[in-house]
Amino acid sequence: MTISEFDLIAKYFRPLARGRAEALNLLDDAGILTVPADMQLVVTTDALVEGRHFLASTHAIDLAHQATGVNLSDLAAMGAAPLSYTLDLVLPKTKDEAWIAGFAAGLAEVQAVHGFFLLGGDTAATEGPLTVAITAFGLVPAGAALTRGSAKAGDHIWVSGTIGDGALGLLVARDGRKLSDSQGDSFLAGRYRRPQPRLALGALLRGLATACADVSDGLVADVGHISEASGLAARIDASAVPLSGAVKAAVAGESGLLEQALTGGDDYELAFTAPPAAADRLQALSDDLGLPLTRIGVMAEGEGVVVLGPDGTAMALKQRGFTHF
Amino acid sequence: MTISEFDLIAKYFRPLARGRAEALNLLDDAGILTVPADMQLVVTTDALVEGRHFLASTHAIDLAHQATGVNLSDLAAMGAAPLSYTLDLVLPKTKDEAWIAGFAAGLAEVQAVHGFFLLGGDTAATEGPLTVAITAFGLVPAGAALTRGSAKAGDHIWVSGTIGDGALGLLVARDGRKLSDSQGDSFLAGRYRRPQPRLALGALLRGLATACADVSDGLVADVGHISEASGLAARIDASAVPLSGAVKAAVAGESGLLEQALTGGDDYELAFTAPPAAADRLQALSDDLGLPLTRIGVMAEGEGVVVLGPDGTAMALKQRGFTHF
Repeated sequence: MTISEFDLIAKYFRPLARGRAEALNLLDDAGILTVPADMQLVVTTDALVEGRHFLASTHAIDLAHQATGVNLSDLAAMGAAPLSYTLDLVLPKTKDEAWIAGFAAGLAEVQAVHGFFLLGGDTAATEGPLTVAITAFGLVPAGAALTRGSAKAGDHIWVSGTIGDGALGLLVARDGRKLSDSQGDSFLAGRYRRPQPRLALGALLRGLATACADVSDGLVADVGHISEASGLAARIDASAVPLSGAVKAAVAGESGLLEQALTGGDDYELAFTAPPAAADRLQALSDDLGLPLTRIGVMAEGEGVVVLGPDGTAMALKQRGFTHF
Repeated sequence: MTISEFDLIAKYFRPLARGRAEALNLLDDAGILTVPADMQLVVTTDALVEGRHFLASTHAIDLAHQATGVNLSDLAAMGAAPLSYTLDLVLPKTKDEAWIAGFAAGLAEVQAVHGFFLLGGDTAATEGPLTVAITAFGLVPAGAALTRGSAKAGDHIWVSGTIGDGALGLLVARDGRKLSDSQGDSFLAGRYRRPQPRLALGALLRGLATACADVSDGLVADVGHISEASGLAARIDASAVPLSGAVKAAVAGESGLLEQALTGGDDYELAFTAPPAAADRLQALSDDLGLPLTRIGVMAEGEGVVVLGPDGTAMALKQRGFTHF
């Protein structure tokens, strides 16, 4: 790259600090966050590696959406409002200034939607694949964060939006699979490329949901995270899991794709638990947000996740979700 | 790796959370930090890439010291006390469970010294080099953080410890160079491998130093960061820069190594500015800490960094410091 690191920061990254005093113009050793006395700071981090978490063909703008989206989705799962983030950008020589311009433009788009800013970061060169590590910060009223560990036996399990779009979208985007009609396939690929973190929902679930996780590793795995952290069993009714028209069409053509939808990752919906009495309030919330909320199962004493198939017996799932190694 | 990610976290990383409620047992989407009302949170991040920031031969324990050390040094430069950190660990297949055990043991060593804990993290596989991204959090009394941007014309420039040990230690550790006697070379390599972040000094410089940076990119570059952020010129007297016996011996044998000492990185000392009237208090501080503090130059109106050589004329430096690309 012919541009210096200094000029790169000045031209592409300093504007992302949006003049916020906390970022010290990206001129310092660190940033300085102020957390209001009645709030707590939620902190999450995710590393994305080319070829592993995103495709080599991923456009820089889409990668910016994906790398921030996975972190914002974690904030949503805790009921936090986005505040800021740091960025570690580890670049192979194949990425030029135009790539960085696109990536920064994508970050600016996401920042504009969610009202947060770049606090600081680091850049490094690598002989290996492009790697992006983001640590994101959100604010939540003190003591009100949603966690995975506080589901109660008898709570219903709910999920937002539709499940499986991300996993099948990956098959479309990466493998060129034709799973639905062209509009459906385009929808699926878009759901994979541009996660829509459910931040508004997460914030409104505070005090209503008993436990919450985002659907990133796959519905079964992520409900499993709630199950494990809460020390309870979870039962999911596969036939209750909300599917988009495109996923329904795909599954109609190839029934094995149902398992892919249930265990694949990258949906970035929220899976959460709530007492049965909360159903009416959740329905009202769904109406307010224009976002489907669907009851898909129940928590019970015990351990592990069982998925009941359409015939009422437990499905034998070959893969339970995304593993990081 | 035959061990699952889940077991890896349980066995090696959960103990690093030290049972702190903030880390939610590493079972959740994120951690939750509470910042006392009269404090601010200092946030810094650094990504280290094998072959670029550390040697492929680096032992896992040393890497843990280095990866945390560079971040702790940033906290020291802001006058902050370490609180916590997140870890993104991007692993090639060549790293096995024994490597992770060593890395975690190194993290535990550093945590024990500095009293902070693992808040959360992410693990990922890569086809490329080992990459470690740490984001570190420190607490500082509200409004009291040291920054790079508030030096005043006429302030003296000071530096802690000795300069050039890290850069020459790299030559010993990486290239097997013999620069001093064997004890001296061992000292240099140790200074490179095990950064000693100047946290006690940084905290005590609050209210005393006008600006501060850690010496990571190299003395000239890091004083340059203060110069640039403060909108001032800096003059460094090379003959005043404190050198260890080992570096003096190396420079006596090969005078060109002086430039390497002044512009190389990885010293993790603090460079700071203070008004001339602070000299006595700084001397007392030096005595209290048992850490040399040496006046090496002065800030002035203007811009840029000039290094005056032993003959009183400006040195022509070929390389001004570590660049990240």
